[in-house]
Amino acid sequence: MFSPIGRYEFTIDAYLTDFRGRATLPMIGGFMLQAATKHADERGFGYSSMTSQQRVWVLSRMAIELFEYPKNDTSMIIKTWIVSVNRLFTERHFAFEDSDGKTIGYARSLWASIDLKTRKPTNLTELDGLSDYIYTEKECPIEGLSKISAMKDEYEKADEFIVKYSDVDINKHLNSMKYIEHFVDVFDIDMFKDKEITRIEINYISEGRYGSKLDILKREEEDSNFILEMKDGETSVCSTRIIWKQF
Amino acid sequence: MFSPIGRYEFTIDAYLTDFRGRATLPMIGGFMLQAATKHADERGFGYSSMTSQQRVWVLSRMAIELFEYPKNDTSMIIKTWIVSVNRLFTERHFAFEDSDGKTIGYARSLWASIDLKTRKPTNLTELDGLSDYIYTEKECPIEGLSKISAMKDEYEKADEFIVKYSDVDINKHLNSMKYIEHFVDVFDIDMFKDKEITRIEINYISEGRYGSKLDILKREEEDSNFILEMKDGETSVCSTRIIWKQF
Repeated sequence: MFSPIGRYEFTIDAYLTDFRGRATLPMIGGFMLQAATKHADERGFGYSSMTSQQRVWVLSRMAIELFEYPKNDTSMIIKTWIVSVNRLFTERHFAFEDSDGKTIGYARSLWASIDLKTRKPTNLTELDGLSDYIYTEKECPIEGLSKISAMKDEYEKADEFIVKYSDVDINKHLNSMKYIEHFVDVFDIDMFKDKEITRIEINYISEGRYGSKLDILKREEEDSNFILEMKDGETSVCSTRIIWKQF
Repeated sequence: MFSPIGRYEFTIDAYLTDFRGRATLPMIGGFMLQAATKHADERGFGYSSMTSQQRVWVLSRMAIELFEYPKNDTSMIIKTWIVSVNRLFTERHFAFEDSDGKTIGYARSLWASIDLKTRKPTNLTELDGLSDYIYTEKECPIEGLSKISAMKDEYEKADEFIVKYSDVDINKHLNSMKYIEHFVDVFDIDMFKDKEITRIEINYISEGRYGSKLDILKREEEDSNFILEMKDGETSVCSTRIIWKQF
């Protein structure tokens, strides 16, 4: 049996970092997905095992906190483990370390598993192996996963885009990390010069489909604290809270 | 001394593949950049060594041929080596293998090195170590890197986009792989159902800058053979030839 905590190392490639030579949030999000996929694969509840049972993992909520963004030409360690399992959801936590072993952040994520045909949730307590790996000994000292309420008023339209080939994943829906990319791109590059996104929360609500035009609405809740919502007409697709901090 | 050929392995993560469960061209392009960066780093002419000499690598041309796109949950091996060095350019080749060791494609790339301040080309024959690694024993049996002529007429405007935070690299210019993403996204997703991009050639001409609006022009040269050009007003930024093949 594998250890409950999986440990994966990723290189921050200079030619893939942002203009500051730092890892980007979509890049770190991509590493998290890779770490989660490997952790699940190794323990028998990964992508292939799920599809053989006509199921697929669906990310429902996520919160990422970073105290520091790793620099180019360094490595980043992602540790991940399963914290809880109930009928509908399983919670997976993450801890991030730089190449010196210093903790640079944490994340929490909530996953459901849907049936590939009916698109309805399946019972996770019946999923082989998953519950055996619940591990509650390691701390993840960041705020939990909460619901971001829909925007009612006082918002501005910040952007719009059409979901294209490179945006969609194997389910033909907007890839979880592409949501982050589109949200982050709403901000002017100058904000990244003296500020950092210290926390991002995401609620995945419905699926962004190929070819649809999505609007991004934006509201500043309080100073350096933004709510963004992605909408397909009147349907809310995804919402996020992004908190910036001076560094 | 390291072997002239570097060998790097990449995982095709299920949640990052396209709707067919296949690696995408921008993903493979990203792996190529990572392989090139590691190969150069290990041999003393990587990103850090270059910046300490006030220089940076700039990709000038690239051609990628794929006989087969790797499937999700498999690995892909990228081998890369330096083929030639002259004052202005160095040519780097790539060979791709699937997890069974079967060759699934090749690529060629042409790089210059510019001075970080003057933005002018530096003399590559004077670069420490680079020439020691020239290796001409391994074949790369695909057509060479040619110039794609500018579009004169009979084109349509296929897309436009504004260069955003996630598009730009450490030089504050459009990331080499983001060009591929924007080009590939011009095609309807239905084309990927029974066809495959078998060859892509790219000429990087000038730099796509943050905030600029870029147009993508498109012309079908012959059946399944497209020329695309990215323009910032009248200035050509990048052009590509994309060849599709029925599978």
